This record gives sequence, C-alpha cells and structure tokens, in this order.
Amino acid sequence: MKRIEIINGPNLNLTGKREPSIYGHTTMEEMVDDLRQQFPDVEIGYYQSNVEGELINRLHEVGFTADGIILNAGGYSHTSVAIHDAIAAITTPVVEVHISNIFAREEYRRHSLLSDVCRAVLCGLGLDGYKYALDYLVK
Amino acid sequence: MKRIEIINGPNLNLTGKREPSIYGHTTMEEMVDDLRQQFPDVEIGYYQSNVEGELINRLHEVGFTADGIILNAGGYSHTSVAIHDAIAAITTPVVEVHISNIFAREEYRRHSLLSDVCRAVLCGLGLDGYKYALDYLVK
Amino acid sequence: MKRIEIINGPNLNLTGKREPSIYGHTTMEEMVDDLRQQFPDVEIGYYQSNVEGELINRLHEVGFTADGIILNAGGYSHTSVAIHDAIAAITTPVVEVHISNIFAREEYRRHSLLSDVCRAVLCGLGLDGYKYALDYLVK
Amino acid sequence: MKRIEIINGPNLNLTGKREPSIYGHTTMEEMVDDLRQQFPDVEIGYYQSNVEGELINRLHEVGFTADGIILNAGGYSHTSVAIHDAIAAITTPVVEVHISNIFAREEYRRHSLLSDVCRAVLCGLGLDGYKYALDYLVK
Amino acid sequence: MKRIEIINGPNLNLTGKREPSIYGHTTMEEMVDDLRQQFPDVEIGYYQSNVEGELINRLHEVGFTADGIILNAGGYSHTSVAIHDAIAAITTPVVEVHISNIFAREEYRRHSLLSDVCRAVLCGLGLDGYKYALDYLVK
Amino acid sequence: MKRIEIINGPNLNLTGKREPSIYGHTTMEEMVDDLRQQFPDVEIGYYQSNVEGELINRLHEVGFTADGIILNAGGYSHTSVAIHDAIAAITTPVVEVHISNIFAREEYRRHSLLSDVCRAVLCGLGLDGYKYALDYLVK
Amino acid sequence: MKRIEIINGPNLNLTGKREPSIYGHTTMEEMVDDLRQQFPDVEIGYYQSNVEGELINRLHEVGFTADGIILNAGGYSHTSVAIHDAIAAITTPVVEVHISNIFAREEYRRHSLLSDVCRAVLCGLGLDGYKYALDYLVK
Amino acid sequence: MKRIEIINGPNLNLTGKREPSIYGHTTMEEMVDDLRQQFPDVEIGYYQSNVEGELINRLHEVGFTADGIILNAGGYSHTSVAIHDAIAAITTPVVEVHISNIFAREEYRRHSLLSDVCRAVLCGLGLDGYKYALDYLVK
Amino acid sequence: MKRIEIINGPNLNLTGKREPSIYGHTTMEEMVDDLRQQFPDVEIGYYQSNVEGELINRLHEVGFTADGIILNAGGYSHTSVAIHDAIAAITTPVVEVHISNIFAREEYRRHSLLSDVCRAVLCGLGLDGYKYALDYLVK
Amino acid sequence: MKRIEIINGPNLNLTGKREPSIYGHTTMEEMVDDLRQQFPDVEIGYYQSNVEGELINRLHEVGFTADGIILNAGGYSHTSVAIHDAIAAITTPVVEVHISNIFAREEYRRHSLLSDVCRAVLCGLGLDGYKYALDYLVK
Amino acid sequence: MKRIEIINGPNLNLTGKREPSIYGHTTMEEMVDDLRQQFPDVEIGYYQSNVEGELINRLHEVGFTADGIILNAGGYSHTSVAIHDAIAAITTPVVEVHISNIFAREEYRRHSLLSDVCRAVLCGLGLDGYKYALDYLVK
Amino acid sequence: MKRIEIINGPNLNLTGKREPSIYGHTTMEEMVDDLRQQFPDVEIGYYQSNVEGELINRLHEVGFTADGIILNAGGYSHTSVAIHDAIAAITTPVVEVHISNIFAREEYRRHSLLSDVCRAVLCGLGLDGYKYALDYLVK
Repeated sequence: MKRIEIINGPNLNLTGKREPSIYGHTTMEEMVDDLRQQFPDVEIGYYQSNVEGELINRLHEVGFTADGIILNAGGYSHTSVAIHDAIAAITTPVVEVHISNIFAREEYRRHSLLSDVCRAVLCGLGLDGYKYALDYLVK
Repeated sequence: MKRIEIINGPNLNLTGKREPSIYGHTTMEEMVDDLRQQFPDVEIGYYQSNVEGELINRLHEVGFTADGIILNAGGYSHTSVAIHDAIAAITTPVVEVHISNIFAREEYRRHSLLSDVCRAVLCGLGLDGYKYALDYLVK
Repeated sequence: MKRIEIINGPNLNLTGKREPSIYGHTTMEEMVDDLRQQFPDVEIGYYQSNVEGELINRLHEVGFTADGIILNAGGYSHTSVAIHDAIAAITTPVVEVHISNIFAREEYRRHSLLSDVCRAVLCGLGLDGYKYALDYLVK
Repeated sequence: MKRIEIINGPNLNLTGKREPSIYGHTTMEEMVDDLRQQFPDVEIGYYQSNVEGELINRLHEVGFTADGIILNAGGYSHTSVAIHDAIAAITTPVVEVHISNIFAREEYRRHSLLSDVCRAVLCGLGLDGYKYALDYLVK
Repeated sequence: MKRIEIINGPNLNLTGKREPSIYGHTTMEEMVDDLRQQFPDVEIGYYQSNVEGELINRLHEVGFTADGIILNAGGYSHTSVAIHDAIAAITTPVVEVHISNIFAREEYRRHSLLSDVCRAVLCGLGLDGYKYALDYLVK
Repeated sequence: MKRIEIINGPNLNLTGKREPSIYGHTTMEEMVDDLRQQFPDVEIGYYQSNVEGELINRLHEVGFTADGIILNAGGYSHTSVAIHDAIAAITTPVVEVHISNIFAREEYRRHSLLSDVCRAVLCGLGLDGYKYALDYLVK
Repeated sequence: MKRIEIINGPNLNLTGKREPSIYGHTTMEEMVDDLRQQFPDVEIGYYQSNVEGELINRLHEVGFTADGIILNAGGYSHTSVAIHDAIAAITTPVVEVHISNIFAREEYRRHSLLSDVCRAVLCGLGLDGYKYALDYLVK
Repeated sequence: MKRIEIINGPNLNLTGKREPSIYGHTTMEEMVDDLRQQFPDVEIGYYQSNVEGELINRLHEVGFTADGIILNAGGYSHTSVAIHDAIAAITTPVVEVHISNIFAREEYRRHSLLSDVCRAVLCGLGLDGYKYALDYLVK
Repeated sequence: MKRIEIINGPNLNLTGKREPSIYGHTTMEEMVDDLRQQFPDVEIGYYQSNVEGELINRLHEVGFTADGIILNAGGYSHTSVAIHDAIAAITTPVVEVHISNIFAREEYRRHSLLSDVCRAVLCGLGLDGYKYALDYLVK
Repeated sequence: MKRIEIINGPNLNLTGKREPSIYGHTTMEEMVDDLRQQFPDVEIGYYQSNVEGELINRLHEVGFTADGIILNAGGYSHTSVAIHDAIAAITTPVVEVHISNIFAREEYRRHSLLSDVCRAVLCGLGLDGYKYALDYLVK
Repeated sequence: MKRIEIINGPNLNLTGKREPSIYGHTTMEEMVDDLRQQFPDVEIGYYQSNVEGELINRLHEVGFTADGIILNAGGYSHTSVAIHDAIAAITTPVVEVHISNIFAREEYRRHSLLSDVCRAVLCGLGLDGYKYALDYLVK
Repeated sequence: MKRIEIINGPNLNLTGKREPSIYGHTTMEEMVDDLRQQFPDVEIGYYQSNVEGELINRLHEVGFTADGIILNAGGYSHTSVAIHDAIAAITTPVVEVHISNIFAREEYRRHSLLSDVCRAVLCGLGLDGYKYALDYLVK
C-alpha cells in the first residue's frame, strides 16, 4: 500500500471555510476525504501549517519514507530557499500544486523557487490539481 | 459528444520517433490513440506544426467551436506574443502542457508568455500531462 | 497612379468577423473597400498572414516597387527582429499602424521592435489609423 | 461648433523660426492658421510653454470644457508623472503627437509616460500629425 | 562522400540580388556554386526560407543524416527558442555563420540564442565564413 | 465598543527594553497601556511574535471579527508574500506602521510587500504612528 | 505660537472642486479651515502650485523660519531631485503626505524621491493624513 | 568683446547666503563680481531660477547669440530631458559645471542627462569650476 | 570562562544523519562534542531550528550575554531581513559560517543578507569552519 | 610579403603544455610552426603575455605596420576597455579568435568587449580558428 | 615649491604622435613642457604606462609625498577597482581628467569607477583639462 | 614537507607600513614570519604584485606543484576573469582570503569573480584569515 502526504502551506487552512464565494465551499479536509474514497489503496496523510519551518519539519519527517509528497507551499513558494533545500535534501519525489493559475497573477507570484527541485508542477486546475498529482505519484 | 483539440508546436513531431532514450518510445500518434480509447466519448483532434503562424491558424479554426484545447507550444511558449493573442481572441478554454519540468531548465525557458491566458498549466508529468488536461477539460 | 500595400499580421483576420462587441463590425476587407473609394487615384493592395515569414516574403515582393507600405504586424511587432530586418532591407517607406493604443496595455506590448525602421507610427486611432497612414504616404 | 486645444511643450516654440534646415520653415503659428482654414467649423486654441506646471495649468483650464486636446509635451513626455496625472484628472480626450519618430531616437526617448492615459499616439508624421489628430478628435 | 547542408534564414534571399552596394554582387546561389567547385568531394545542399518553422522542418529533414550543417538564421538567431531546440534535438553538428560582425551592431543583435548549441560561430568574414565553416565540418 | 488589534513582528519585543539610547525607554506594553487610557472606548488587543507563521495565525484569528488591525511586520514586511496573502484573505482593514522612516534606510528596506493590501501606511512617526493609526481605524 | 506650512503640488488644486465622486466633496481650502479650528494655537499657512520650481521657491521662503512643513508634492514626488535637494537644504522638518495609498498603485508611483529627506511619511489616510502630520509636527 | 552667460538652476540661489558652514561664505553674486574683475574683456551675464521651464526660456534667449554658456542645472541635471533638448537646439556651446563631486554622492546623482550635449563637464572644483569653464569658453 | 553559542538554521539537523555520501558521517552533535574537547575552557552552546522566528528568539536570548555567536542560517541566509535585524539589534559579535562554498552554487545563493552585520564570513571549509570561527571569537 | 601578428592573452601559454586531456597536445609554438609551413609567403609573428598592458604595448608596436593581427585576448576579452581602445587606435585590422565556443559557457563569458572594434570573430573552431583568420587576413 | 604628478594610463602614449587628425599634433611630452613653463614654481612629474599595476605602483610611490596627482587612467577608469583602492589608500589628493567628454560616448564609458575617490573630475576640455587641474591643485 | 604559497594582489604591499591606524601595525612580511614559526613543518612562499598578469604568472609557476595557495587578489577579485581562468587551469587548490568583511562594503565589492573556482572563502577575520586558510590547506 502506497503512502502519499499532502502538505499545505500558509493561508490554505481558510479554503472552503470562509468567504465561500472566493474559495469555494469545499474544505481541504473534505477534499482529503474525497481523495481517500477515490484512492482506497493509498494511505493519504494531510498536514497544514502557516509556519515555514514547520513545513520543513514535516518534509523531513515524511520525506525519506513516503512514496510521494504533494506540496502547495502557498506564498512561501515564491520566497523560501529553505523549503527548496528541504525538498532537495529528502528522497521522496515532490509534486508542486497551486489551486489558481499563478502565471495570471502578480509578477512576483509567477516564479516559484521550488519548481526546479519538484518532479512536476500543476496549477490552475483548482482542487483537481491534488487529484491528478496523486494519480501521477501513485503510478 | 465533446470535442477536444490537441495542438503541438515545434519539434514535438520528433517525440518517440528518434532518440528514444531521450524522448521515450511513445509517439504522439500512439498517445492520441491511447487517449481516444480511454476517452471513447470524446472526439479528440490532433494537429502539429513547426510553423508559429500555422499554430495560430489552427487555434482560429477550432477555437470558436471545440470544447477545449490542449496546447504544447514548445519553444514558441517563451517568445510568441502572437500565439498569446490568438489564445486571448478565441473562446474555447486552453490548457497549457509541457512534457518536461520547464522550471528545472534554462532561465529563459522558465517563463511562458502563454500561461496568463490559459486556464491551467501542467508540466513535468510526461505524456500523462495530456491525459490530465483532457480529463479536466471534459468535466 | 500611386501604389500602396496594406500588410496585416497575426490575428487581424478576425477583425470584424467574430466577436463584434470587441472587434467592431467592420472587416478588414470592408475597410479596404472604403479606402479604395476614398482614394480612387491610389492602387491599394491588401495582404494578411498569420505566418511571420510570409509577411517577410510579402515585404520583399512589394518593398522595392510600391510607393508605400502600411504595416500592422500585430504580435510580431514586439518580437520579430526578422521583420525589422526586412523593413530595413527594402526601399519602400513603411508606416506602422496599431488599432488600439498599445502603450495603455501590457508592459511587453509597449515596445515595438519595428518602429525605429518605420517612417511613422500611429496607434489608438482604430481603423482610421490606416486612412491617415494612407493619406500621409500618398503625399 | 467643436473646440479643440493644441498644447505644445518645451522647445517647440523654436519650430520653424530658427535652424530651418532642421525644423523646417513652417512655424507653429503658421501651422495653426493652416488648420483653422482647413477646419473652418472648429474653434482651434493654441498654447505653448516651456514650464511643466503651466502645461498642467492649461490642461486644467481647458480639460473640462474643450472637445479634444492635442498634446505634444516634448521632453516632458518622458519624465512627467505630474502631466500624466493631469491628463487622467481631466475629462476631455487627449491625443499625443510627436513630430519626429521618437522610437528611432535615444533609448530614454522611446517611452512616453503620457501614452497610457491618451486616446491615441501619432509620431513621425511631421506637422501632419497635428492635422490627423484634429480630424480624429472632431469626428 | 560527405554531405553538408547550408541553411539560410530570413532576408538572406536578397543577398547579391538587390542593393549591391550593401550586399555585394555575389548571390547565395553563386556562392554555393563556387563552394561546390572548391570542394568537389562534398555534396553541398542549400536551403533558404523566411519562415521560422520551415527552417525547423529542414533541420529535422537533414539533421540526422547530413555530416554537417551551416546555419545562418538571420534575425531568428536572436529570438528563436524553437530553432535552438531543433538544433539540440538533431545529431548533425551545426556551425553558426553571420556575414557581418553582429557584435558591432545593435545591442539586441549581439546575443544569439543559437550559439550555445552550435559547435562553432563565425561572424564578420563575409561570404568567406561559409567556406571556412565548410572546411571545418568536412575535416 | 470597537476592537482594534495591534500586531508586532520580529525584534519589536526588544523595543524600550534594551539599548534605550537606540530604541527609547518606552516598551510596547507601556505604549499599549497609554493607548488604552487615551482610547477608553476601544478594546485594544496586543500580539507580538518573531515567527512569520504565527503572525499569519493571529491575522486569521482576529481578521474576521476585529474592527481594525495595526500591523508592524518588521523585517517580514520586505520579504513575506505569505503575510501579504493573509492580509488579502481577511476582511478587517489593516493599517501598516513603521516606527522609523524606512525610506531613509537601506535600498531593500524601502519596499514593503504588504503596503498594497493595507489601507494606509505610516512611517517615521515613532510610537505615535500607532496612535494615529488607531485614531484613523476607530473613526 | 507655532507656524506650520502646508504645501501642495500638481493637480491637488482640483481636490473637492471637480469630480466629487472621485476626489470627495471637501476642498483643500475647507480642509485648511477645519485644521485652523482644530488647532487654534497653530498658525497654518497654505500654498499650492502646479509648477515644480515654485514649490522649491516656497520651500526656501518658509523653510528656515516655520516650525514644520507638510508636503504633498503629488506627481513630482516620484521624479524631482530638485525638490529633494530643496528639502535637504532647508532646516524646517518636513512630513510627506499622500492622500491615497501610493503603494497600491502603478509601479513608478511606489517610490518617492523625497521620502529619505523627510521626517515621516503618511499615505492612504485621505485628508486625515494632513491632520496627523500637523499634530505630529506641533508636538 | 565676448559674451558668456552663467545659468544656475534650483537651490543654487542659497549658495553663500545661508548655512555658510556647508555652502561657504561666497554668494553667487560675489563670485560673478570676482569673475568680471578677472575677465574684464568678457561680458558676463548671470541668471538663476528654480523653475525648469524658465531655464529653458533663458537658454533660448541667449543660446543663439552668446559665445558660451556655463550651466549648473542642479537637481534638474539628473531628470530633465527638456533641458537636454534645449541645449541640443541652441547653437552656443555649453559647459556643464557642478560645485561638488556628484560622482561621490548618491547613485541617482551620478548620471547627468545633460552631459552628452555639453562640450565639457567640470565637477568637484567648487566655485573655481565656473572660472575654468569661463577661461575655456573665452579661448 | 567564555561562552560561545552555535546556532544552526534549516535542514542542518540532517547533517551526518542521513545521506552520508552527501553530508558526511559527522553529526552536528558529534562536531559540538569535538569542539568542547578541543576548547575545554569555552562553554559551547548549541541550538538548531528550522523555524526562522525561533532562530531570532534564540539570538535575542543569548545575544546580550554570550561572548560570541557562530551562525549558519542555511537557506534563511539569502532571504531573511528579520534575522539580519536581529543580528544588528544584539550586542554579541556574530560570525557567519557555511559548510559548502556558496559562491560556487546557484546565483541566488551567492548573496547572504546577513553578511554585512556579521563580523566575518567563512564558507567552503566544511565543519572546520565552525572550529576556526570559534577560535577567532575566543581570542 | 605580408606580415601577420598572432597575439595571445592570459593563460594561453598553458595550451598543449599541461593537462593535454583538456587543452590538447599541440602547443601554441607548434601551431605557429605549422602555420608558417602552410603559409610560406606570410611572415607570422607570435606574442603572448598574461599582462593586459603588455598586450596593449604589443598592439601599439605592430598595429601601424603589420597587415593583420589575430587576437585571442582570453579572459581580458570580457573586461578590458583598455584593449578595446588600443584596437580602435591602431590601423591594422584585427580578427578575434577564441578556441572554445564562448557562447556555450558562463553568462559573463558570452560578451566580448573587443568584438565591436574587430573585423571578424571566430570561436569554437579550436586551433583551426587561427588558420582561418590568417587565411582571411592574407586575402 | 609644490610637487604635482601627472599619471597617464593606457593608449595615452599615442597622443600627438600618430594619427594627428584624430589626436591633434601636441604630444604629452610637449604639453608637460608647456605646463612647466606656465607654472615655473611647480615641480611637475610625468608618468605613463599601459599596465594597470604599474599605475598602482606609481600612485603608491608618489601618493604620500606629492602635493597633488592628476590622473587620466584611460580605459582603466571604467573597470579598475584596484586603481580605485590605490587612490583611496594614498593621502595625496587626486584630480581625474579625461581629454574627451566621456559622457557623450558609449554607455560603458560614462561611468568611472575612480570618480568617487577623486577630489574633482574634468572632461571634454582637451589638453586644457590638465592645466586647470594643475591650477586647482596648486592653490 | 608541504608547500603553501601566499599570493597577495594590489595595494596589499601597504599593509602595516603606512597608515597604521587603518591597516594595523603588522606588515605582511611580519605575518609570514609568524606563520612560519607557527607552522615549522610547512614551506611557506610569499608573493605580492600590483600587476594582474604577474599574479597569473605566479599562479602558473606554483599552481602545479604547491600543495595549496592562499590568494588575496584585492581589487582584482571583483573584476578579473583572467585570474579566474588561471585558478581554474591550475591543479593546486586555492583558498580565497579577504582581510576585511567585503560584504559590509560597497555593492560592487560584494561579488568576487574568483570564489566559484576556489575551495573556500574567508573574510573579515583580519590577518587571522591567512592562518586559518593555511591550517585548512595543510590538513
């Protein structure tokens, strides 16, 4: 049985909980439940933190034993050399996901410092991005 | 029955035909056959050209009637304002796909001029990127 | 009798044909007809292509014999050193026209690589820009 | 009867008065007279100043009542946020005119800070630029 | 018997045909004839197009069987990631040639996107550059 | 009764406690006491952390119910896309305060990533900046 | 009795007089009257000009005797080295005020050349910014 | 008898009048008197203004008849395309003078927009710079 | 007896524990033990965290009483204005250490935001860097 | 009899002498001997120095009498305005040669300060570059 | 009796000796003779070298005892941090002279690395620049 | 017995000889004597030159036989591609030393062109930097 960890970064705890007109009505917890039903043969972990260093801690904890990591580092994607280094240091492959199309947003948001050490990047697919990343990593 | 067009840009005609150690053994035509079998209810068109303007012609031809376009504009992704304008001018939603992770390559290849007018961007997933894009557009 | 060639670049074939709320209801063919009526003593040629190299071919064909060229190179205006070189190589004077005010748009669209080898530049005047350019070249 | 104001910026008072081999033999006053004869149904005002702030004063004075303004802000075009703000604050549409092709000159002269708040831009047409701008604004 | 292909890009069809004071009196066809006489043991192919994608097509056609390619991509040298990718994808070594010294010209012309995937670069030697490139590739 | 939260970022816990010749003698706690006396009708909360993610946590906790937030994010002002996103995600208006005039300091300190999502910015007013921000938010 | 001078730059004479939906209904003269009532013990001067050099003249006239200057240099804030030098040359402390939050506007408007020689900067507080600046300077 | 005009820009009216510890005790008027005594055969004019456009006016007035102009445009040196154009338009040679060594000051003060159209540049020589410029122009 | 604190930032907890072919076999704990034996007269503290703000907390705790701090801030070295400010705020001298030669790595890793407030910088010396830094600080 | 001087810059004295796996087995002296045999009618001089100024001295000595100079300025190619000026000051035409393809190397090595004052540039042809340059200069 | 040293850098040995139409007919030696006659009470030394390091050697030799140094470092002015450091290290004041107006030349020649450690800068005055610099240093 | 060469670049000959308040009282010769006493088993060579090319000569002479080189290239560190190439060409490992903390100085001094080909970099440790580099290279 494969084990995949989903790690979400800053502000993603608000998804689906507040401002549904903006973020939609699906919470991350509901999305993870859906994924667990769609992929019954995969053990799916979920972790969220607004603290950059705690995301690094989590990458260290699961990054040598899990079969894949789906990472949406939110705003840290654009500024964190430290998370970049953590991804490079671990052995589990990481797929980067962004809910919105970051390339259609502000200039500074079009460059992710993490992408070059990730296996693949999906953005603009909404919550479906997590599903496709999971499908890809399981194979 | 939905109709999705796959449009491939320069050099992608070589995929799977030469240098299999680099490009893999699957040709684009074989990939399209596979997709047609996996998605029997979708009419999947396929077009490839090395000529920038012919890609624009094709976007015009299918871009007001198809239900979705999957575009891998290859090297033109990084330089073509004209393809950008064509995507903006048509009404069919476009999903951008890159076989390799362009963010792990040369500096000038990390920026796609097309992404901001596309619905979503997938890269680094190999040929699976086309499948996920198709699945997303069909929904 | 003077001979003036109008050359239109990528996506301008859509003008007036689709999305009239955006592009207006006048097609380029209708505009050329109007100009031919307003300037009965001028032989007005018209050419459109989405292919960068075909625009160069046309500039070569008419650029040593016509009395003037009106060029709207669309998206290639911002990226094409090759069209720039073609304008510099021919002997017919070229006037650059843009339908919209490109300076009020995206940063990369504010710089035309062609302007320094053109005689004059008009933008933001809508289809009237072609008329004024024609009037200027005829004198 | 429509009212159009022509506003000229620094150094344009020299046009046609000195160094005719460079500036031509037509003064701005003569050009305005010509325009008044060609457009007898239009009330054409003329103002010139070398002082940035006086150009702003004039834009304020006529910018809520005139039907159109033709502005050649000369060297201030490339440096003046204040004139940009004045154009944005008034309600009369403004067309920017340059006698020479500024895009064929020094790098810092290729960017006008004013263009994005103007309706249209004409350059390189010599004094004819004023005529076409007037024709466009009257319509 | 070795086979070398000469591929010329945009505007190079004008060489020697028009404006001899600028381009000299030798046409590309005459130059190729001269080379065939000087190198009787080499099969020399010649191809010219103003269309970027057709240059890529030609690189694909000869780039896996010819012994060498001499490429003068003209204005596309400075803008084409797609031709860069085509050179990288083929197996025949490519030598880049420019007739004039591009480093003594405009800033944007001093950087060729193609040079890093070419074997060697010669510029400023006039038509002799093709001869030296041929001599080098034959050895 | 209105509720305003003051949130201080890294190193601001040292204010008034050490190096009084530099930081003055007033601690943040004393300043908050003063403000509570001056504004008896306002409930003033105070939070300080050196951890970027904990500042985000706090913004989430109070950012949907408080009437206003006064934020001095210290060094994170210049680097944190994540805090920027948190401010944009919450509904309470935020006023940015800096004790010193950051524009008279090092180049990288003159740009705050947070300012464009804040309602107003005050800097260089010393601790009075908090008072004016409070007065503004209460109104 | 303290003496504070308010100096307003280009286009600020329009405030409250025209386009009230944009600029509000309060004129600068009314605001100054309000401030004189709120601060009866302060002599408040007011000066406005659209001419950069006249702002410098005024800074020279009051800058060695007044107790404080509140300066809103409008569009000159972003381009004027000369006003910067005038502030540096005088002895009266200057506080910079902007009615709107300039950091949430165009890129070139986010940098004020004046801020590093001013004592403090307030922006985005509307007309209240003048009041807080006055209160700060009086103390 | 030769005629040389000295034109001083913004803030130079303060020289020697205030803050003598910084600006020295010699006023510009005293310096001009000294120069008139040292160069009795030269007619020396003097003009100062803080208004950019008035400096242009003065350049126009004397720039076709004087034998030389000594220009210290102060802060406008670094920002004024309009004064640059005025110098280029007149026929009298202009020598640029700065009292202090502008190259040892802030980054933005190290580049004068005027230098390329001036005959020579002297800076850092104090008031002696005017004397040497005068001596050079008289010869 | 002197007291020196070693503070390690993100990912340095992995040193010597995993991937010994990359990181070597010596853990940070073993290195500290070695240093304590080599420097028996020095009290050597050790702290590691992946959280930026906790590193700041630790700098505050020891930065007014310890005799020296050896800081390897890892990936935060290149992005953290907040740690820079913490070093500037404390009174204990700090020496910056990097295990690898950061100047031979990616462009963004060649610039440390911390170096200008540190006493000295050592990089590329492996774990010996800590020893030399300690020796230097003890003297 | 024609006279051509070969001038080699820093580190080129090592060619063929050390590290043959990298630099090949042919020394510069052997190459010059070969050239003298291939071109018996040409007097070929050879000079090498690691000192920038001595290269300038040599350019001065031969640059007014020799018929051609072949210059490989090594690392000084990318940094030396002084050698650039020396080439511009002499009358003998200079051809620039680089053994390797500098465009396929580090960013800062892709720009030669010397190319714009040289007649032609050859790079990536190995030692054959010297031969072709010689052949070109003799003609 | 005062002692002033004139130090000339690369290519200045050619002045007046070759190409008189460009460099004039006066050699540096003749200019120094003239200066010695005009300033009989000053001991004037003269040194020229094309070698950067020898210029540094000379600055060290005279830079602690001479009363002034006039330095024209030619092309090294734009690239030499080492000469900059030598000027900063010595105690004799240095005046920088350029014969031509470097600000009217190529972009890279408009910035001298030496100016900020020199007392004054004169350029564009021809050989007179040396005379004025001498006059200034003697006083 | 190991052999280590210390190579010092421009201006370092002044260390300890002049201006002791700035450079300290220890000369480089005294420092080398101290090192020879502390490391009696190491043969320590010493070389200093202000001439860039002579530093390259010395690197060539000792760079294939010595066991280590300690290089302080002074001002050439920031500008010399040629020394960079010399370090890359030799086989002896090089450690870069700077006496002061170059990262706390001018912008252009924060980047050493040499660091990426050196084994390690030490700066800000004063003359102790040489000792630690020696200790490191001997091991």
